[in-house]
Amino acid sequence: MRLLLVNPNTSPGLTERMASVARSVASAGVEIDALTAHRGFPYVASRAEADIAAAIVLEMLSEHAPGYHAAIVGAFGDPGLAGARELLPIPVVGLAEAAMLSACMLGSRFAILTFSSTLVPWYRDCVGRNGLGGRCAGVFVAGGGFTTIDNVQAEMAERIVEAAQGVIAEAEADVVVFGGAPLAGLAERVKERIPVPVVDCVAAAVKQAEALVALRPRKAVAGSFRRPPGKPSTGLAEPLASLIAGTR
Amino acid sequence: MRLLLVNPNTSPGLTERMASVARSVASAGVEIDALTAHRGFPYVASRAEADIAAAIVLEMLSEHAPGYHAAIVGAFGDPGLAGARELLPIPVVGLAEAAMLSACMLGSRFAILTFSSTLVPWYRDCVGRNGLGGRCAGVFVAGGGFTTIDNVQAEMAERIVEAAQGVIAEAEADVVVFGGAPLAGLAERVKERIPVPVVDCVAAAVKQAEALVALRPRKAVAGSFRRPPGKPSTGLAEPLASLIAGTR
Amino acid sequence: MRLLLVNPNTSPGLTERMASVARSVASAGVEIDALTAHRGFPYVASRAEADIAAAIVLEMLSEHAPGYHAAIVGAFGDPGLAGARELLPIPVVGLAEAAMLSACMLGSRFAILTFSSTLVPWYRDCVGRNGLGGRCAGVFVAGGGFTTIDNVQAEMAERIVEAAQGVIAEAEADVVVFGGAPLAGLAERVKERIPVPVVDCVAAAVKQAEALVALRPRKAVAGSFRRPPGKPSTGLAEPLASLIAGTR
Amino acid sequence: MRLLLVNPNTSPGLTERMASVARSVASAGVEIDALTAHRGFPYVASRAEADIAAAIVLEMLSEHAPGYHAAIVGAFGDPGLAGARELLPIPVVGLAEAAMLSACMLGSRFAILTFSSTLVPWYRDCVGRNGLGGRCAGVFVAGGGFTTIDNVQAEMAERIVEAAQGVIAEAEADVVVFGGAPLAGLAERVKERIPVPVVDCVAAAVKQAEALVALRPRKAVAGSFRRPPGKPSTGLAEPLASLIAGTR
Amino acid sequence: MRLLLVNPNTSPGLTERMASVARSVASAGVEIDALTAHRGFPYVASRAEADIAAAIVLEMLSEHAPGYHAAIVGAFGDPGLAGARELLPIPVVGLAEAAMLSACMLGSRFAILTFSSTLVPWYRDCVGRNGLGGRCAGVFVAGGGFTTIDNVQAEMAERIVEAAQGVIAEAEADVVVFGGAPLAGLAERVKERIPVPVVDCVAAAVKQAEALVALRPRKAVAGSFRRPPGKPSTGLAEPLASLIAGTR
Amino acid sequence: MRLLLVNPNTSPGLTERMASVARSVASAGVEIDALTAHRGFPYVASRAEADIAAAIVLEMLSEHAPGYHAAIVGAFGDPGLAGARELLPIPVVGLAEAAMLSACMLGSRFAILTFSSTLVPWYRDCVGRNGLGGRCAGVFVAGGGFTTIDNVQAEMAERIVEAAQGVIAEAEADVVVFGGAPLAGLAERVKERIPVPVVDCVAAAVKQAEALVALRPRKAVAGSFRRPPGKPSTGLAEPLASLIAGTR
Repeated sequence: MRLLLVNPNTSPGLTERMASVARSVASAGVEIDALTAHRGFPYVASRAEADIAAAIVLEMLSEHAPGYHAAIVGAFGDPGLAGARELLPIPVVGLAEAAMLSACMLGSRFAILTFSSTLVPWYRDCVGRNGLGGRCAGVFVAGGGFTTIDNVQAEMAERIVEAAQGVIAEAEADVVVFGGAPLAGLAERVKERIPVPVVDCVAAAVKQAEALVALRPRKAVAGSFRRPPGKPSTGLAEPLASLIAGTR
Repeated sequence: MRLLLVNPNTSPGLTERMASVARSVASAGVEIDALTAHRGFPYVASRAEADIAAAIVLEMLSEHAPGYHAAIVGAFGDPGLAGARELLPIPVVGLAEAAMLSACMLGSRFAILTFSSTLVPWYRDCVGRNGLGGRCAGVFVAGGGFTTIDNVQAEMAERIVEAAQGVIAEAEADVVVFGGAPLAGLAERVKERIPVPVVDCVAAAVKQAEALVALRPRKAVAGSFRRPPGKPSTGLAEPLASLIAGTR
Repeated sequence: MRLLLVNPNTSPGLTERMASVARSVASAGVEIDALTAHRGFPYVASRAEADIAAAIVLEMLSEHAPGYHAAIVGAFGDPGLAGARELLPIPVVGLAEAAMLSACMLGSRFAILTFSSTLVPWYRDCVGRNGLGGRCAGVFVAGGGFTTIDNVQAEMAERIVEAAQGVIAEAEADVVVFGGAPLAGLAERVKERIPVPVVDCVAAAVKQAEALVALRPRKAVAGSFRRPPGKPSTGLAEPLASLIAGTR
Repeated sequence: MRLLLVNPNTSPGLTERMASVARSVASAGVEIDALTAHRGFPYVASRAEADIAAAIVLEMLSEHAPGYHAAIVGAFGDPGLAGARELLPIPVVGLAEAAMLSACMLGSRFAILTFSSTLVPWYRDCVGRNGLGGRCAGVFVAGGGFTTIDNVQAEMAERIVEAAQGVIAEAEADVVVFGGAPLAGLAERVKERIPVPVVDCVAAAVKQAEALVALRPRKAVAGSFRRPPGKPSTGLAEPLASLIAGTR
Repeated sequence: MRLLLVNPNTSPGLTERMASVARSVASAGVEIDALTAHRGFPYVASRAEADIAAAIVLEMLSEHAPGYHAAIVGAFGDPGLAGARELLPIPVVGLAEAAMLSACMLGSRFAILTFSSTLVPWYRDCVGRNGLGGRCAGVFVAGGGFTTIDNVQAEMAERIVEAAQGVIAEAEADVVVFGGAPLAGLAERVKERIPVPVVDCVAAAVKQAEALVALRPRKAVAGSFRRPPGKPSTGLAEPLASLIAGTR
Repeated sequence: MRLLLVNPNTSPGLTERMASVARSVASAGVEIDALTAHRGFPYVASRAEADIAAAIVLEMLSEHAPGYHAAIVGAFGDPGLAGARELLPIPVVGLAEAAMLSACMLGSRFAILTFSSTLVPWYRDCVGRNGLGGRCAGVFVAGGGFTTIDNVQAEMAERIVEAAQGVIAEAEADVVVFGGAPLAGLAERVKERIPVPVVDCVAAAVKQAEALVALRPRKAVAGSFRRPPGKPSTGLAEPLASLIAGTR
């Protein structure tokens, strides 16, 4: 089984971090490739950046998905996920979606904990878009700050553990989801210090991608995720243009 | 007062249609400019296309919004609206949002009626994103088909009137919203044949943009619509890159 | 365009305050008349008082609305609004409804801030009745008190500004609505001290009334806001009795 | 125990019908008085009429409730109920509320069945106001018509039974509530012909009023149903004016 | 009228406490029998225990309900209530359901207050299962602890009163429900020290059971609470086996 | 990895069917054991039967789960799932939960399709309990009937395919979940005849169990799924009694 993880951020360090966690949880025989965006932002955070990232995700997947059994959108918030699910014949999962749905099997209410307050509205919108508002105890931020996106995990690990402990008590959460690609791999390192299960979004996405591939779902030819009718376009990256045109 | 309407579709006929309706309802002294996208699709319909349109809306607004008092996203479904609201110092409204909120003042439950089943999931998502599910009697489609996007209104007017009559009875709607830029102007022509108020999305957007300008709201410097911190980017159209970078 | 604002409170000072704000935001050519209730309360606050105010609104509108293009119910909480919308052939808007819907175009979540805890349940019911619970960050009260209803704004302005600042941080609101006719005009004066957009309910109602008039909606003859069949009555004020009887 | 049923309609026949059903289900030792409104409508149906009826309910209760252990608002839709609950020291129940809550103990989902389509929006609003939308399978109307409000039951009984049978199958209802005072007493007569429990709204209200009296709840002096602070008024019926003034 | 209260806990002291309160509020002529479970737990608290208690409730009712006019499930959380309602021809009510629905007639929002944090998730699930989330201000716990289940009330009364006072202010509750059989009878003793109505769950259940009996509902033969088709079983207590088999 | 599937039904044919599907989708190195209940019903269907099945699930898991890495509750409707999750140190998944959450990654709205109308209320309750009402297009039943539970799939396959086709069109579903253990394996056989992805509940449960094991979540020691404090009991099967007592 071959899985493709596309990082819509332009930070290769983030891609490496995600790829490393992804490979560490992948089943035997699962090969994972990870790609970094050539255009966009070092790290997507606001709604506007997420809009642009969605288009970038579609560009990356239209060019590189052929030959893979499933794809992972490597940004919590899942930019472009629904559109990719329309266009591609293979399963596509998002970090946030996979983490939240996995968390639903570990308790009644999950809290999302992240590292920057700028991310909160986007993540909160994502919870609502998934219809999971009734399961979510809130989106929380560990205080303090960080120097660079590659340093988030090293610098903030302690504060995230402390924040998780507080959130569980105050928000009555049964599970904590660490939200954001820069936190990939942290859950495994600190989970014994947090008194409820902690979900790593990259690990969850890999396992959910594997699960969907194993379920061998057919591509919809009806319903709202059937492939849209072919359509001409102007000024789009070629692979995306031809995918949407239906010429391949 | 100067309003900018950006059409994220590449069809100039659609832009003209919207501009014409917009000017017909604008208050005295309101000047309306309308722009057609240089890249993208003749007519955005699917979720994937909407993702791309959102980025195009941001490109258009970052380049052209300076000097205007408010902007209108000229596609029902409101691609890029929330992101634009983060980035720009002026009010921004969407066709769907403006039409739905206006409809809320004309009855308890509104139905959205459109011309192509491909649009339904996108419009339904938009209702949910606005938290208006409890006010919406459903998203409905007039049957049959059309030859080109510019001909939708001429060819489908009768079927839309008939569908509206049916929807009111079956879905217990108090108001009908005609959803989709190609229907701009139709409401005024057929409203006497439909037994409840009909909302034209372009007309509603113009009046709501005027209303917001008159309210003179300040740009948020707190909350989730404050302008995000400046951020570098790669490969974006220049005006958008510099807007997001915070260098203008 | 002629707009009628009916104040269901018996305080002429309140009517003058609302009229003054209304005229200050009205478009050129819009004439606004404002009437004070002859019976009722100096200031409606509880659910019981709101029930009585609803009947008073209907009495006032049935007598005075003829000749106007739209009417405004001049009490936050919107007593009698839905009933008036059934009976009258012209658009009718309420202060709360107009303010909340306008706020929805300025952010994801609005907070309502008012000056007396007695008002909170009524306002909260109003949010729910509008199906906007998912958009409302809460109904909040500035502490302290006031001497008379005409003095609310002068005495409480500072405390309201402080409360607004607190609410934005704690309730994660993107917009603040100043709820209550006695606060009309305050938003414009203090908005630069509050870090998110502030909506003035009277200003919003005027602009929404203008917008609806411009949309030229037909009076429903189907759906739940068609005019109810004529009905005899006993002991009602004459204009209301004849309007409900269908004899005019 | 003494219960007061106020009929906000001016039809004495309706009062008699309700009183008769009420007495037939009352426990031993429970005395029931029923009053007919002196002003208002023969039968309240629309939102506007309900607004006026709410004020009438408050007038009737403020004058006559002293000396009773509990009161019943004798109109499905419960005009004035929340306001009465604020003002009075005794329990007050409404026909709709009591019937819906009783129905909740007989199944998961109840359907409301009534005799005139004019009533549907009011009843639907009432379901929402009670937060019971998730338990309600819908508000339905038996077809055909009737000559006078006193004849509704005689003329429509068969059609209501047939409609109930249809509603149970189509709307997947576990219980049927007969909505509207003119249907009082019908449930007992036809219940064996309807395959799920049928709730009579007047019978339910009497039993719920008895239940509340037996629970001996104190009058709230905090929370949103504490008695509002005394307030002057102009032009109100004297007993209501003095109750609201706090002078008795 | 004969009512059967089954206590799915094995503590006879609890049964006596509930029986005593039940008899103190029962109408003249209502006879109440109370049974203690022979198997199970001294006091059901967790979800797992509630699952087991549900089966025990069905065992107890299948054996003992014949001859009674209605039955009461004597545990807040209402284990087995829906199943019992399917199987039995008589009305069955639960402590939580009856208390919550009664509370709905005394205010807009009720808070549940209990004596052990272990109970909170179960009670919260129960609120959701009843579709009353919109009416519930929260499930709260009085601090401290207790020695034995029979001593809860004596040891915790003061702390419960204090907690109630705090909850009303903070959670904006109009009514307080004392949740849990060990608190039966406490409401009557302390109600004057709590500024909103307090609902005793056992008293509420008795009055609701009486109310349902008086309404004389038929047993459903359609809808989701019709008696399920007879079914063989293995290893069940005989009365339950034969009830489910349909052989009696 | 060793997974335990407990079938709370007493039909060994059903266990074999589930085990066969489970093994067919399991990853290399995953060993699956399946157990049939010794007491209970051939096939659980009603709410009452589900209550009893929940207790049986806890009995089976308390006896047999030691030594396994995760457990699967082998009945759609997930009896005893939440309780098992409290008690056991390993992940536990249910057929319905796993199927619904998997379906959420294949489209916006899933429909559940089953083979007997008796199952519908239980399944619908299960959707609500999971907070997934906003994602579920409905619970539907294929018409006709079947002779024995072991023959359901053979006899009803054609009618289920036809019903699925109808449901997709009418209920606007993006995904279909085949609900009920007797349908295990059917999805794979018929999926090409159904125009949207079809989820097999047993296959989904196996893959989700594998995913959770791979995520290596810790057992909660806080939150509402921490293991409840040890508690004595009477008359329970020994392994369950000692698990709940905390003596092992």
